[in-house]
Amino acid sequence: MTSLSTIPHAQVLAELRAIVGDKACIDVAADMQPFTTDYRKLYHGRALAVVLPADTQQVSAVLALCFKHNVPVVPQGGNTSLMGGAVPDAAGNAVVLNLRRMNQVLEIDVVNDTMTLQAGVTLQSARAAAEEAGRLFPLRIGSEGSCQIGGNLSTNAGGTAVLRYGNMRDLTLGIEAVLPDGRIYSSLRGLRKDNTGYDLKQLFIGSEGTLGIITAAVLKLMPLPSATAAAWIAVRDPHAAVELLGEAKRVAGQAVTAFELISGPALTLVLESMPQLSAPLPSAHDWMVLIELTSGGDAEGLDATLMQILEQGMERGLVTDAAIAASIADTRAFWMLREEISDAQTRTGGSIKCDISIPLSKIADFIADASAEVLALAPDARMVIYGHMGDGNVHFNPLRPKDVSAADFLAANYARVSHAVDGLATAQNGSISAEHGIGVAKRDDLLQCKSPVELELMWQVKRALDPKNLLNPAKVLPVPEGMA
Amino acid sequence: MTSLSTIPHAQVLAELRAIVGDKACIDVAADMQPFTTDYRKLYHGRALAVVLPADTQQVSAVLALCFKHNVPVVPQGGNTSLMGGAVPDAAGNAVVLNLRRMNQVLEIDVVNDTMTLQAGVTLQSARAAAEEAGRLFPLRIGSEGSCQIGGNLSTNAGGTAVLRYGNMRDLTLGIEAVLPDGRIYSSLRGLRKDNTGYDLKQLFIGSEGTLGIITAAVLKLMPLPSATAAAWIAVRDPHAAVELLGEAKRVAGQAVTAFELISGPALTLVLESMPQLSAPLPSAHDWMVLIELTSGGDAEGLDATLMQILEQGMERGLVTDAAIAASIADTRAFWMLREEISDAQTRTGGSIKCDISIPLSKIADFIADASAEVLALAPDARMVIYGHMGDGNVHFNPLRPKDVSAADFLAANYARVSHAVDGLATAQNGSISAEHGIGVAKRDDLLQCKSPVELELMWQVKRALDPKNLLNPAKVLPVPEGMA
Repeated sequence: MTSLSTIPHAQVLAELRAIVGDKACIDVAADMQPFTTDYRKLYHGRALAVVLPADTQQVSAVLALCFKHNVPVVPQGGNTSLMGGAVPDAAGNAVVLNLRRMNQVLEIDVVNDTMTLQAGVTLQSARAAAEEAGRLFPLRIGSEGSCQIGGNLSTNAGGTAVLRYGNMRDLTLGIEAVLPDGRIYSSLRGLRKDNTGYDLKQLFIGSEGTLGIITAAVLKLMPLPSATAAAWIAVRDPHAAVELLGEAKRVAGQAVTAFELISGPALTLVLESMPQLSAPLPSAHDWMVLIELTSGGDAEGLDATLMQILEQGMERGLVTDAAIAASIADTRAFWMLREEISDAQTRTGGSIKCDISIPLSKIADFIADASAEVLALAPDARMVIYGHMGDGNVHFNPLRPKDVSAADFLAANYARVSHAVDGLATAQNGSISAEHGIGVAKRDDLLQCKSPVELELMWQVKRALDPKNLLNPAKVLPVPEGMA
Repeated sequence: MTSLSTIPHAQVLAELRAIVGDKACIDVAADMQPFTTDYRKLYHGRALAVVLPADTQQVSAVLALCFKHNVPVVPQGGNTSLMGGAVPDAAGNAVVLNLRRMNQVLEIDVVNDTMTLQAGVTLQSARAAAEEAGRLFPLRIGSEGSCQIGGNLSTNAGGTAVLRYGNMRDLTLGIEAVLPDGRIYSSLRGLRKDNTGYDLKQLFIGSEGTLGIITAAVLKLMPLPSATAAAWIAVRDPHAAVELLGEAKRVAGQAVTAFELISGPALTLVLESMPQLSAPLPSAHDWMVLIELTSGGDAEGLDATLMQILEQGMERGLVTDAAIAASIADTRAFWMLREEISDAQTRTGGSIKCDISIPLSKIADFIADASAEVLALAPDARMVIYGHMGDGNVHFNPLRPKDVSAADFLAANYARVSHAVDGLATAQNGSISAEHGIGVAKRDDLLQCKSPVELELMWQVKRALDPKNLLNPAKVLPVPEGMA
């Protein structure tokens, strides 16, 4: 591969400026810093330049230029990756390509129930545009105010409504993506069925910008639900939560929109961190569930369905107490408690973030086994465990004891605790990154949890689409020992 | 590429026999004939041998052997392809690998709502096994008695319940596939969320056996519906059908399971072909819809919902008459009429099969425009038009007039009619094969309907995974002019 050193940086910069304009090409280190540091402030990279193209043609021209000169390109949306996936490394030879200026909703088709938009639209704006047209775009994640549709696509985002609506991949009918050499691929057709050859969009969804840069998409829209019912439920234990979910699916079918598990320490952390919030139930509980049902029918019917689930749960000894939301404000308050768990950990510092999925039939045992392993290693850790149990996904985040500093706790425990938890998940055929992706943070962990054939296939695809290894290099794909 | 001629056939056959056993290796032409002729008897190929492996290890050994000797391999399930996708060409140098002996349901997990099975299980057996466990496997296509799960996966099968449940891709959590060189890829983990690198299973789903041979899968199971409501509805025209669908989705949400359009000539053909069947409505109509709602709730509620849809449709002038199924027998009779449209055409002979999808917002106009074009070319054609309008998918099948022979009609019209219909669909960004796939029948049509970048990407992927071009060669991927 030709080294960049043969091309003067100044020449590349001049050509980039000619493509995107002076204002959209940043090359002063201080101004680049927000683009080269990740959301959690763990990765501090450097870049040759940050470019902010205005349209797909400019993205194409930038990539063609970088391909010609062998310049690595790091695609970036809202820069909210938890895995260091959207920032460059410290070499300083890469161009960061941020899509925030490409923020137009191009079309909403309420007959076809589709929305066509540019990749730089924030999730919040996309949801708002859909709602204005009387439709729901159902993806729901904490960072919706800043994350962008392109990032949601490239990480196959999940969140709290996957149980009913699926993840980002399931919500996508077509994409436009620019290939490493600048060619433009498009499947912006808005079709629900199209078996004419390979489904190429699947290559780009979830591959974290390593195969192409997604510039636009056609997404599915759903009917806006007319009724919502929610409850905060104390359950006997995670086994009971799984049984209750089965009951809820039996009684309410696809109305079950969210089913979130929350451990006692997770709620305690939020309440201590935000004293203005209050607990939904009078007593403390080891395990709780936040359930949400939605439907296009009447609210009374849905409330009755929720009551039926709770009564069944009580009768079978699964449920020990429950608070039912009596208003939209109540439902919001429940969700606030749930959604603050992540930020409360960030403020407290010193949490070991594992994002595990396991088949539902084994998840309760997994939580018990992993908790025992962690507590054997770090007996005083606060067991912050929560997440999308309905999808078999838990955020398993042991947190420092109050009297130990974050730095000390992480230094002593990060590696061995995450190794133990991820190892247990892998042994159970689970996933070590259910929804957060791989980026650079978990890249080398794939050597432990993927088979050699899976890793070889990933590289076969990477080499076929990005033969110069220029797109988001050193992300996602680990280099196995002995590989060239 | 090494020519097969350097390896004696006898040696390859002996090695194949050593792998699968004598009885599972057929090399007598007469015995091979059911495996080398396609479902519609349009393609009559020849093979070096037909092998019927007993397990994944044997599939792997066969592929490794064929890779070593550069022998092409044609994977085959139930051999129900409408596109000649599952039979070899006339060269006689390929091995047909049929998966029918791999017909075990390996596991049903009712807590995880998943079913793990070998690729040779028929769709009917898969549905029955799910039902026995109290669950629904929702894929529903006419050939369910003979088509196999592996074929359903490799063609991303659709059918009459896609509107609610999605197509085969949407119903799949993991697969096992054998690569062209014999390596085994597996993602049989049963996870609903797993963002650890590229979602490799997507490569094999829908690629018609050109990248690997699917040997097993983990599929999603759904709750068995407790209530079904169905109606056979006369509508003003296809525009009214689209409006009625919007109304149905508004009122019934995800309960809308099927929404099938049927043209007058399509129903007439079935009634003439099967005199024991009777029309659901007293008068003849140009356009009809078969709607089915299902839910986990009570039957009365669902009936009321259906009535509400019909009343709205009447009030708005969309619906001119309707017959509501009063029993399971009625519902079955409606479906029988719908599902016999395909076989009635086969018996009659002389139909020009186009399988089009278009965004719902444009499909009614498409039907009008395409009908006008076809009738300008073939004024007496019977306009057999039907299919999954809810997915924007119609089977647009102009049929010979009664007084013209099939051979004469097809000779005079096949090329120009299908060219006109497919061309119109392509011009509208539609699909020329919504669910039937490409195989060999539509392969070269991709040159007209795909962009050069799409075709190049398909070849980039094909070469990366099957560098010797041995798996189902000459299927799906056209060779663009000027390409090596």
